[in-house]
Amino acid sequence: MKNEKIINEMVQKLLSGDRRMAARLITLVEDEAEENHEAMKQIYPHTGKAAIVGITGSAGSGKSCLIDHLIRKFRQQGKTIGVVAVDPSSPFSGGAFLGDRIRLQSHSSDDGVYIRSMASRGYLGGLTRSTHDVIRIIEAMGRDIVIVETLGAGQDEIDVIHIAQTCVVVTTPGMGDEIQALKAGLMEIADIIVLNKADLDGANTCIKNLQASLSITSFEEGEWVPQVIPTVAVASKPEDIRGIDELVSGILEHQKYLHISNALERVKFERVEQELGLIFKDELQKIIFKGLKGTGKKKKYIKSILEGKNDPYSVVEEILGSYLITDGERRNG
Amino acid sequence: MKNEKIINEMVQKLLSGDRRMAARLITLVEDEAEENHEAMKQIYPHTGKAAIVGITGSAGSGKSCLIDHLIRKFRQQGKTIGVVAVDPSSPFSGGAFLGDRIRLQSHSSDDGVYIRSMASRGYLGGLTRSTHDVIRIIEAMGRDIVIVETLGAGQDEIDVIHIAQTCVVVTTPGMGDEIQALKAGLMEIADIIVLNKADLDGANTCIKNLQASLSITSFEEGEWVPQVIPTVAVASKPEDIRGIDELVSGILEHQKYLHISNALERVKFERVEQELGLIFKDELQKIIFKGLKGTGKKKKYIKSILEGKNDPYSVVEEILGSYLITDGERRNG
Repeated sequence: MKNEKIINEMVQKLLSGDRRMAARLITLVEDEAEENHEAMKQIYPHTGKAAIVGITGSAGSGKSCLIDHLIRKFRQQGKTIGVVAVDPSSPFSGGAFLGDRIRLQSHSSDDGVYIRSMASRGYLGGLTRSTHDVIRIIEAMGRDIVIVETLGAGQDEIDVIHIAQTCVVVTTPGMGDEIQALKAGLMEIADIIVLNKADLDGANTCIKNLQASLSITSFEEGEWVPQVIPTVAVASKPEDIRGIDELVSGILEHQKYLHISNALERVKFERVEQELGLIFKDELQKIIFKGLKGTGKKKKYIKSILEGKNDPYSVVEEILGSYLITDGERRNG
Repeated sequence: MKNEKIINEMVQKLLSGDRRMAARLITLVEDEAEENHEAMKQIYPHTGKAAIVGITGSAGSGKSCLIDHLIRKFRQQGKTIGVVAVDPSSPFSGGAFLGDRIRLQSHSSDDGVYIRSMASRGYLGGLTRSTHDVIRIIEAMGRDIVIVETLGAGQDEIDVIHIAQTCVVVTTPGMGDEIQALKAGLMEIADIIVLNKADLDGANTCIKNLQASLSITSFEEGEWVPQVIPTVAVASKPEDIRGIDELVSGILEHQKYLHISNALERVKFERVEQELGLIFKDELQKIIFKGLKGTGKKKKYIKSILEGKNDPYSVVEEILGSYLITDGERRNG
């Protein structure tokens, strides 16, 4: 097919690290274009090799500044980086304050850094699924490390965090932020807990609280025990910046642990399982809503529900009944 | 059927306002029990009459305190209330500080107030869909007003907000919180913007900023223009509490607007449309994953993807092909 050939040429360019082609392919994801599936099919076999690091924490916790430092350190080690900013308040997303934005844009002249925001527009296929695809595209560019920045609130975000192999949860002293994080279930998914702004009052109490909550958690033999790392990502004097090397080491140590234990296999399995589920849902809904659309049935169904003559559960049963093959009838695939 | 009869008895109790029955039916939602569908089918016709008010804003913005005041005011007006707390950090969810929790529990002795947290556990069918069902159950109890409290971050949360007829966005002075809210797209969905903690420094600037951003937005003739209401929900002296009456008036005014214009029809239509979509997705996935499960095919598919021999898009196409009836074959339902 002609289409397949054009997409193949696009994917070849992507594999050679072409940034503009990455942007074009990501636009296909955003638009849920027909070509997206063909492109993802061809991209898929070239993915799964990058280290995927999730950085999560509430707005204002300093995630973007930490990522800025991480980019510099990893670049010094010769590693290529991709950043996917899912947090709409992130400077990487074009939001936040001018100063931040300018500082982060300094990476834009470095070919070894590819930054992409997921906040610029709606995603027809859902944010989580689109984020999956965007990460795969960046992996196919041959990046060594892909950093995913999320806000750490809401189910979608938790789903996104599950994509990450190493999950860094960022919290700050004061305002009971570490308690909020505990409550939101963020600690359970943390491989590394960063207490940023560790120069603020109450930092020591916070670290003690975090370590106390870890000490009452039971870990199995050989299981990874989350590290607590205090950091200062912003300071008026550069020498007051703290904890960045420790964070880099922590991430690399955790990656090493994943490779030595068989935990990486499990994380990769779960990632594919999640992707399969999301694609399933979307494709099915598309097919069935398309079937409804032409006939004006959907509107009729909704109206009958609003008039109290029907309910959505019965409607779904009815439509499914006419579209799905029963197990008895099912073709042998 | 016997099951149908038992559920009918349960639903009858719910319709009479039985709180314990509401809790039992909500448990069916949480468990995605088989009986849930039958229950929701019977509950559905008795819903759609309550005013649904969404209160959204970041953790610490004082949403729960505002809701506490709203409950008191609406109760004084003789209205019955339901509260659905989707925010895991909400005192309504059993989190937050002891003082808050005790104050809010004072409503528990009032039969006219039914409070339910969505944060206590995972929801198999997804948080948004479960929240839909829980709101319908509370509506069926005959509540006049259902308040939905969310954190206002993440796609799931935005979806939940769309359930609300009147959407109140809560922000606070300082920390650029109002800018964050603007960026997160919260302002576009706000019918009422509350600046809580209006006794703090910078409140006046905040109000000016908010009003300025509204003044550059163009509204159509007859369209609702969001109100900006400064409030003080917590104060050491009760006489320093401010803006609560204005907030109550604002909510009632917006509800009146919805009834007079045909906007309410649209909001209700969209709500059912979203519900239909969510139920569709879940039911389809359930059916197909059930089909895969027995055969151990799912694991085989994931392994083949991990080995680079296949990709999720092709797998979905293959499975769908064997389950779906093509348009030509389709039974005439």
